[in-house]
Amino acid sequence: MTTSWVIGADTSDYSSSVLPYGVALVGPSAEPHVVTRIGDSMLDLHTLTESGPVGSDFTDVLAAGSLNALLASGRPTWTRLRAALTSWVTDPAHRPQVEEHLSPVAGATLTLPFEVADYVDFYSSEQHAKNVGQIFRPDSPSLPDNWKHLPIGYHGRSGTVVASGTPIVRPTGQRKPRNATEPTFGPSQRLDIEAEVGFVVGTPSQLGTQVPAGALTDHVFGTVLVNDWSARDLQAWEYVPLGPFLGKSFATSIAAWVIPLDALTEARRPLPVQDPAVFDYLRDDDPWCLDLRLSVDLNGTVVSEPPFATQYWSPGQQLAHLTVNGASLRTGDLFASGTVTGPQRHQRGSFLELSWGGREPFTLDDGSQRTFLEDGDTVTISGWAPGPAGRRIGLGAVTGTVVGGP
Amino acid sequence: MTTSWVIGADTSDYSSSVLPYGVALVGPSAEPHVVTRIGDSMLDLHTLTESGPVGSDFTDVLAAGSLNALLASGRPTWTRLRAALTSWVTDPAHRPQVEEHLSPVAGATLTLPFEVADYVDFYSSEQHAKNVGQIFRPDSPSLPDNWKHLPIGYHGRSGTVVASGTPIVRPTGQRKPRNATEPTFGPSQRLDIEAEVGFVVGTPSQLGTQVPAGALTDHVFGTVLVNDWSARDLQAWEYVPLGPFLGKSFATSIAAWVIPLDALTEARRPLPVQDPAVFDYLRDDDPWCLDLRLSVDLNGTVVSEPPFATQYWSPGQQLAHLTVNGASLRTGDLFASGTVTGPQRHQRGSFLELSWGGREPFTLDDGSQRTFLEDGDTVTISGWAPGPAGRRIGLGAVTGTVVGGP
Repeated sequence: MTTSWVIGADTSDYSSSVLPYGVALVGPSAEPHVVTRIGDSMLDLHTLTESGPVGSDFTDVLAAGSLNALLASGRPTWTRLRAALTSWVTDPAHRPQVEEHLSPVAGATLTLPFEVADYVDFYSSEQHAKNVGQIFRPDSPSLPDNWKHLPIGYHGRSGTVVASGTPIVRPTGQRKPRNATEPTFGPSQRLDIEAEVGFVVGTPSQLGTQVPAGALTDHVFGTVLVNDWSARDLQAWEYVPLGPFLGKSFATSIAAWVIPLDALTEARRPLPVQDPAVFDYLRDDDPWCLDLRLSVDLNGTVVSEPPFATQYWSPGQQLAHLTVNGASLRTGDLFASGTVTGPQRHQRGSFLELSWGGREPFTLDDGSQRTFLEDGDTVTISGWAPGPAGRRIGLGAVTGTVVGGP
Repeated sequence: MTTSWVIGADTSDYSSSVLPYGVALVGPSAEPHVVTRIGDSMLDLHTLTESGPVGSDFTDVLAAGSLNALLASGRPTWTRLRAALTSWVTDPAHRPQVEEHLSPVAGATLTLPFEVADYVDFYSSEQHAKNVGQIFRPDSPSLPDNWKHLPIGYHGRSGTVVASGTPIVRPTGQRKPRNATEPTFGPSQRLDIEAEVGFVVGTPSQLGTQVPAGALTDHVFGTVLVNDWSARDLQAWEYVPLGPFLGKSFATSIAAWVIPLDALTEARRPLPVQDPAVFDYLRDDDPWCLDLRLSVDLNGTVVSEPPFATQYWSPGQQLAHLTVNGASLRTGDLFASGTVTGPQRHQRGSFLELSWGGREPFTLDDGSQRTFLEDGDTVTISGWAPGPAGRRIGLGAVTGTVVGGP
């Protein structure tokens, strides 16, 4: 563990043990610059490395207006850059060159950190799948037959993955209430969140080849918090037989900060035993999950604290499944965990579950009640993970406010 | 109707009434150039317009190594360029400047014509949906409850949309035969095709807004033939409850040529009456479908001739549905019709239907039989549409050969 010369950083959730990456819009022309965060400050990596001499060998991967060049550069470069960053913010000898590129993160405008190639959403929390099954399909077994054999997933709309802070326009569409004979049309009446953890692919793979479950760190650069906004009424009417479509595709928000996997080494936990045993392609000699502790805030009230370590399927298994058919990976691919829900009531990662299908309203600190989202509601999902020597590793935050439809 | 000075063009499926766009890899460095086709020749639009004086005002939109710049340029530019192209290949005065940029299309290497943003696949053939329902879900109604209320669709994997001619590696994965108690793992045993028509988006739309059903021509540049390869055994086991995933994501092939909507004016037909009546957002004062006649060739035998005009949902309705929730469009978005299947047996657009779930093998001209695809099989989907004065409008062709898995 190293200490930083940046005041307050060592005791912050963004100490020198984190060093996440984001993209800030800088100056009057809002030029996108790759940045990192240390304590309450943002460090402009573009201006720092361009002006030299510090980091001039990283100018190319940091010059682009998104993280994609860095993502594409591969793990050896990721490792070298992280070591360099650590040195810049901890070694007082670098302070004179580095300090002038710091600014308060509070005043920064952060944008979508990378261009999303394909977006896949999994469904890997057993408790979430069971809850949804009981709410949506009360007459069927709570878990589908295939659920413990493979990490179920589907493709989402990458063009509507938006930066944290983007207003969420309430979607309009068709729905058919349970006892109605005909569908109706209008703004969604059951607008929901899904608290998720996303994994950002850096290194691509070739079409027709499979990525082993143990190769996660070869391909995945880091994590990003995800709010997979969901219109439950639209989804319930449309999803048979080809899955969710408009109930999801209006917006998916991601946090401004991508957390390198290298910052989450101390958060690794052994994956719980899976029964039934999984096929070989889903095996890993050293399977791990991550102890990420999420928090869901609605208008200032923490309504849920979903524990990521309770996921049934690991990110390595998700990656292996995604590619077992030969599908290729591209730089910028994003795959998300699906709603993170723990066994306790206050660990449910969606309002669908918190209100049990809308039947059990929950109460906010101001005394108001909610089942689903109302116009004007603001949801912020944040989180942290255990780091070295008792430090916390901040996971960024993803926020959005609901606005009425057109 | 205009006649071309290019010999043989007037009686070809690629007369001056078509003028499709593609991207060819040119020269020893395989530089991607935007091209068109006239008769049996390919016209290099990059070298033509760059060398001037012909078409020098189009240099920018034709300079990029894909059609994306042209797609993004918008309908007024599409119209101007099409008028200019027509003049170049029909007015003998242009022949001296144009002719040196012609070469035989037979010797060309064509590649993916545009960078695919999001890929959506619909399910808009009533006969196909009924057939699949009867084959996969014999105990349920053959059409899902929602089918006649909305054009069902889902997102596919845009990163595995590949150029015509790309070898198709047989995918591996899990499947559970109907009477088995446990899933098994291995190469797909029910590898299939889906003969489809894709629509290519040029002009984007803004997040939170809806595109009316009548605005298709404002946003869509043209059509492209699609083969949505499908592993039926993988799909059947994975698709409940979130839809197709690995059963589709290993590869989707598209034709090398994008056909401008402007070439298909004479192919427009009134949309058949829809019953029940659709919601307002799916209405269009002048609804039309397209009389596109597809042909599916397996190893030299035409096994099917699916008629696109039998689709229940129009492309305008698909576009309106796709965006009714506020989802934005991007340049390069591709939405496909779903399998095109007509009411007759020889009009079925998938092997699943042609062999009725594998129970009724069909015979090729060489006497061999098929239910699903074998390694080494080559499938080519082509098509044409009625054009002016009895001319046929060629729709390009999408081909692929199955190779064994790793």
